[in-house]
Amino acid sequence: MAAKAQVLYDFTAEPGNNELTVREGETLSVINHDVGGGWIEAQNSRGQTGLVPEDYLEIKGGGQTALSHSDANNTHKQVANDNQRSSGGGASSDTAGWNTQGYTQAGCEDDDGDDDDGEWDDDWDEGSMEGHAPGTVGDEEGGAIGRNTHTMKISLNKFPFSKTSNPDVFLLAKLPPKGKDRLPIYLGEVGPVWLYPQNPLDCEVTDPKKGSKMYGLKSYIEYQVIPTSTHRHVNHRYKHFDWLYERLLEKFGSAIPIPCLPDKQVTGRFEEEFIRVRMERLQGWMSRMCRHPVVCQSEVFTLFLTYKDEKEWKLGKRRAERDEIVGQMIFSIMDPEAPELDPLEVEQKCEHYSRFTKAMDDGVKDLLAVGLTHWKRCTGPLPKEYQRIGKAFLNLSTVFSSSGYQGEATLTDALTSAGKIYQEVAEIVAEQPKRDLHFLLETNTEYKGLLGCFPETLAVHKAAIEKVKDGDKMVAAGKISSQEKNTMKQRISSMSYSLQAEMNHFHSNRIYDYNRVMQLYLEGQVKFYEEVTMHYLYYYY
Amino acid sequence: MAAKAQVLYDFTAEPGNNELTVREGETLSVINHDVGGGWIEAQNSRGQTGLVPEDYLEIKGGGQTALSHSDANNTHKQVANDNQRSSGGGASSDTAGWNTQGYTQAGCEDDDGDDDDGEWDDDWDEGSMEGHAPGTVGDEEGGAIGRNTHTMKISLNKFPFSKTSNPDVFLLAKLPPKGKDRLPIYLGEVGPVWLYPQNPLDCEVTDPKKGSKMYGLKSYIEYQVIPTSTHRHVNHRYKHFDWLYERLLEKFGSAIPIPCLPDKQVTGRFEEEFIRVRMERLQGWMSRMCRHPVVCQSEVFTLFLTYKDEKEWKLGKRRAERDEIVGQMIFSIMDPEAPELDPLEVEQKCEHYSRFTKAMDDGVKDLLAVGLTHWKRCTGPLPKEYQRIGKAFLNLSTVFSSSGYQGEATLTDALTSAGKIYQEVAEIVAEQPKRDLHFLLETNTEYKGLLGCFPETLAVHKAAIEKVKDGDKMVAAGKISSQEKNTMKQRISSMSYSLQAEMNHFHSNRIYDYNRVMQLYLEGQVKFYEEVTMHYLYYYY
Repeated sequence: MAAKAQVLYDFTAEPGNNELTVREGETLSVINHDVGGGWIEAQNSRGQTGLVPEDYLEIKGGGQTALSHSDANNTHKQVANDNQRSSGGGASSDTAGWNTQGYTQAGCEDDDGDDDDGEWDDDWDEGSMEGHAPGTVGDEEGGAIGRNTHTMKISLNKFPFSKTSNPDVFLLAKLPPKGKDRLPIYLGEVGPVWLYPQNPLDCEVTDPKKGSKMYGLKSYIEYQVIPTSTHRHVNHRYKHFDWLYERLLEKFGSAIPIPCLPDKQVTGRFEEEFIRVRMERLQGWMSRMCRHPVVCQSEVFTLFLTYKDEKEWKLGKRRAERDEIVGQMIFSIMDPEAPELDPLEVEQKCEHYSRFTKAMDDGVKDLLAVGLTHWKRCTGPLPKEYQRIGKAFLNLSTVFSSSGYQGEATLTDALTSAGKIYQEVAEIVAEQPKRDLHFLLETNTEYKGLLGCFPETLAVHKAAIEKVKDGDKMVAAGKISSQEKNTMKQRISSMSYSLQAEMNHFHSNRIYDYNRVMQLYLEGQVKFYEEVTMHYLYYYY
Repeated sequence: MAAKAQVLYDFTAEPGNNELTVREGETLSVINHDVGGGWIEAQNSRGQTGLVPEDYLEIKGGGQTALSHSDANNTHKQVANDNQRSSGGGASSDTAGWNTQGYTQAGCEDDDGDDDDGEWDDDWDEGSMEGHAPGTVGDEEGGAIGRNTHTMKISLNKFPFSKTSNPDVFLLAKLPPKGKDRLPIYLGEVGPVWLYPQNPLDCEVTDPKKGSKMYGLKSYIEYQVIPTSTHRHVNHRYKHFDWLYERLLEKFGSAIPIPCLPDKQVTGRFEEEFIRVRMERLQGWMSRMCRHPVVCQSEVFTLFLTYKDEKEWKLGKRRAERDEIVGQMIFSIMDPEAPELDPLEVEQKCEHYSRFTKAMDDGVKDLLAVGLTHWKRCTGPLPKEYQRIGKAFLNLSTVFSSSGYQGEATLTDALTSAGKIYQEVAEIVAEQPKRDLHFLLETNTEYKGLLGCFPETLAVHKAAIEKVKDGDKMVAAGKISSQEKNTMKQRISSMSYSLQAEMNHFHSNRIYDYNRVMQLYLEGQVKFYEEVTMHYLYYYY
């Protein structure tokens, strides 16, 4: 007997993709649990068959495998839902209620379930993991394609350390023996700095290719990633970037803000424009990671960029997933070559960073909001108005040329020119945002993502600071020993050095990025006004 | 016993002007009929006293004088009401129902009633005649001061010839003996043309001065008018321009479109901006009249511009008001030096002009509509948006300067510059319409007014053409004689020459005006884009 499945959420099939459109509450017959990739082949009451994401279904009396996968992915879907909610208001903390599920499993679940960990080509599918969660679909902003969809994966960000924001986890923990995995911090001109690699790393994300699997039933996009260290390309799908993101978040998230990947999106998954935008943002994300001195020199990142063959990748993957220096434990391998800091100074630094990142977050969001409004005006009503003005001139020119009066030519020429100028200006105005405003908004969107990670990172530090401030009382109450208190002071000093190094890295990047984008933007604006001037001059003189 | 007066329309007092706010239906006690200038001093039920326009009141058992004036002015008020209605839809013909009152008196009534014809300083007051009619108050367009308020005095335009659009009035009338008042028409390169004066006439309307009368109770604005013919200034108030307009309309309206004066307006009558706008438009109207070869050489126009003293003005006024060559009779003094025209050609010409003026009217209205929308955008939301962008940059600059990180200066300078540029661009954008769009809109508003006169002027011709086409039938039916038929053909030929001369004048003016305004406009736009470019370059490089 075929298992039945209840549809939990509306799902609209991607045309030509062998999918089946289903509505919440509908009952389906499961034809095949084992198509893989997070999909189930099912038949509806009207006899139509097709693929449905299994996390949209509640299977009744089906195979154990599908059921467990469905459960695991429900968590993932909640994450996506939560993302969607928080994307409106920015870095909110509306995750209460499901945080308690714990992330130690959740953080790793992507490769759990029926997903064959070792099978590169049978990993969960883009479709299932990249956005079939209800509500992440489409361009919420209308005019600007994919604009403002850098939704923060805030909720996920919280996992590795929200549970462990308990400062005891590091301050009073028995640390693992020091291995060769160290994160050196030096005192530079601006204060504590990370050890930067001798040769700056970057990479190119390029050449998106459509691949297919499941006998052509499902397709995906594979990108070439070419690091400047080897100049040799490796292939990655979005879900591999996502895997990398999860690893970096898990390992470094307590010390380093790891920005989310560009948003997931169902509709138009294979449209050229979508692929172009996603690739551009993956490129931005990868370049930012390449520029980070800790991330770029980490084992998992190096693996991602330079694995030689499938075997090396699989081994590296397993090793990365088994890494125990994650969460707050990352502070245990910090190695600042500097004296212990006064806890008061630690607190002041932390508060200063907190104020700064909050103020910058507000400023960036404000700029994004007005920039988006401007984008809409420049691509919508403004060029339409120029079109209409142009049309009014052209129309008057036509009327005048019908006068039968001699000596109209100069005037009708002038009116026709004015009409054409306006129609061309309409086009220039409509195209301009893509030429300058785009980069301004992209950079600020990236920073909005980065800044959204700071509250969590800073929360870890604040909790530790409070703990250390209570040190004397705790000693008096016999809760900790004097020696433990000193250990805490030493360890929070280490944390502070890492935070300062990270902030200094952030500032230096920020100055570079904003200098660059402001220059591009202002140059773009100058070119715009010059171009419009030239159009007038060309036609009229 | 004090006479009672019923308030016919709401009237809101001008502050500081000794006026009394009254509401429709209220009953007042008349204190003084004889304050003059179209005002009555009255007291309301709450004991408040003040001046109320007498045409807003229905006097019960008051003096005969006030009553008769009130009646006469009611017609005037209806005209204004009608103006207001037709201003929305342009040259409409929604005047049915009150046309029958006849205009022979109505046309002259301005100086009738209790108004002492000979008393220059006691003429009807600006307040009474210039816009106390309900509904003409204020700026209907919001943002643009006084924009689009060139309301056509369509209804008045109809008077002199609507009643007499009966073609018999000229085609079959016994004409007065030919006097020295002739309107010669020549065949020029473009066809029939008016006799242009040897020296082009123009005048300057300048130096508005506030005067007062009624012991300072009422005040008015007097302008200096300086014609290029004498370079000697004469003084005129708005109501004198209005008197001139009525005379020109009465005399030439059947043959020549006489555009309305700039709109009347109650509120802000003495505000600088209003006076400036009114003077600018009176200047435009006077210059247009000066440029018209028939108008500028007419006796009444010459009187207006060059009267030497009060006595000459009064005598000239009376003579002009007694002029009998008005309405269709104007065609009797046309003197085309040309052969009689084929009635078919007459009809084709008339239809061509009709099509052209209708098409131009549509085009002009379209341009005005989109121009006004553009004006509003450029003076409202657009600069506000630039302000906000500028503020966002400045704000980010402030945030960045609080980082405590060294090496911010270049970036914060760039952001501050960008912020300032945007705030200045906001100002330039908001000011620009006054520099170029203003003239484009003013010219088109003037032409909208002119074009609104054509349907009536052309109707006179069309009625005459129909009559002539029926000539043979009428002869056969014994309604007219063969000779009368020939007279009609000859006279319609004369009418057609005058229409052609007028159209040729219109075309030549139109080409001049639009060439000029398009050049001004496009130059203004070039300057605008260049100025904005320079602002970017100045700050950023």
